[in-house]
Amino acid sequence: MQLPSLLLENAVNEFAKLPGIGKKTALRMVLHLLKQEEASVQLFGDTITKMRKEICFCRRCYNVSDGATCSICKSSFRNQRLICVVENIRDVIAIENTQQFNGVYHVLGGTISPLDGVGPDQLTIQQLVLKVQEEETEELVFALNPTIQGDTTIYFIQKKLQHLPCKITTIARGISFGGELEYADEFTLARSLQGRLPVENFVK
Amino acid sequence: MQLPSLLLENAVNEFAKLPGIGKKTALRMVLHLLKQEEASVQLFGDTITKMRKEICFCRRCYNVSDGATCSICKSSFRNQRLICVVENIRDVIAIENTQQFNGVYHVLGGTISPLDGVGPDQLTIQQLVLKVQEEETEELVFALNPTIQGDTTIYFIQKKLQHLPCKITTIARGISFGGELEYADEFTLARSLQGRLPVENFVK
Repeated sequence: MQLPSLLLENAVNEFAKLPGIGKKTALRMVLHLLKQEEASVQLFGDTITKMRKEICFCRRCYNVSDGATCSICKSSFRNQRLICVVENIRDVIAIENTQQFNGVYHVLGGTISPLDGVGPDQLTIQQLVLKVQEEETEELVFALNPTIQGDTTIYFIQKKLQHLPCKITTIARGISFGGELEYADEFTLARSLQGRLPVENFVK
Repeated sequence: MQLPSLLLENAVNEFAKLPGIGKKTALRMVLHLLKQEEASVQLFGDTITKMRKEICFCRRCYNVSDGATCSICKSSFRNQRLICVVENIRDVIAIENTQQFNGVYHVLGGTISPLDGVGPDQLTIQQLVLKVQEEETEELVFALNPTIQGDTTIYFIQKKLQHLPCKITTIARGISFGGELEYADEFTLARSLQGRLPVENFVK
């Protein structure tokens, strides 16, 4: 695609680097910005640069944070002895949006995946083990994606923690709400049978 | 969607203002930028701000330009007496990409649409009429979208130019390449019959 201006072309190329954005969509965005006030485009640029420059990662849970410790780790309303272990920041946001979890988080930064060259040392596993030891954590809830890599990671961390009194659980796997039994795969169906619950728990 | 950091939230809100981008896609983009080097995010922000600040509109054809006159209007390889009239910058880019047009452009900035409050004075029609008069333009090719508004605009401009010797044409309307006759609407099919061509023109 040939563009009539170098300035336009540079801006389009920058947008086209974003995930899921091709040149045509990038052009649409740039032409949209072109119609905006100069000040609001300046604000757009500055906000993004500032975000990248000033954002920190919480030194306790590795979630994104505006300071050295994130608001969840600082909160006195949160149960600091209940830790939910997740893969990435997006999972923290997803769980927070359910408003069902009152503990704190630990972001691993991925799962153990030898094929992708990710071993335990690339993740924050060591820090998690130390934290559980030092803070006498009562329960660790694993909320990892239901993949082989996720299961391997749970197994690995659980082995490291077996000498501690910390309870280790994982989020339930089963049929999604609104899902249909006949279309569920056998593996999910089998898991949901193994993990069956008394009805009084269920309707609570 | 609750986000764990105000900096993150501001950046997501800025991205979510772009056309076709919701909060979830915006978050995906921001988390992508978060993984990039600080310098490349700075470049992203600066490129966009610079683009908005420094880009000009060609004073002759109203296309975007890096200077007071665009590269197409300045080019001596272009037929300056053949003007293609388009609605917006995106149409210029689309026609340029066909590499079939050797004249120059005139960007109207929209079409006459009383329902949307767009009259002839909001468009660059006056400037077009003056240009055709002064530069003794030989041909005006209308490449407007085939809508009532487009047709109204063509009719309006043609009326203003009828005392001048300038030839006025419009791009052909008919069946798209790869389209199927049985699915074409009657209007398009009727137009393509009215505008039928001798086969020797067609296979040239």
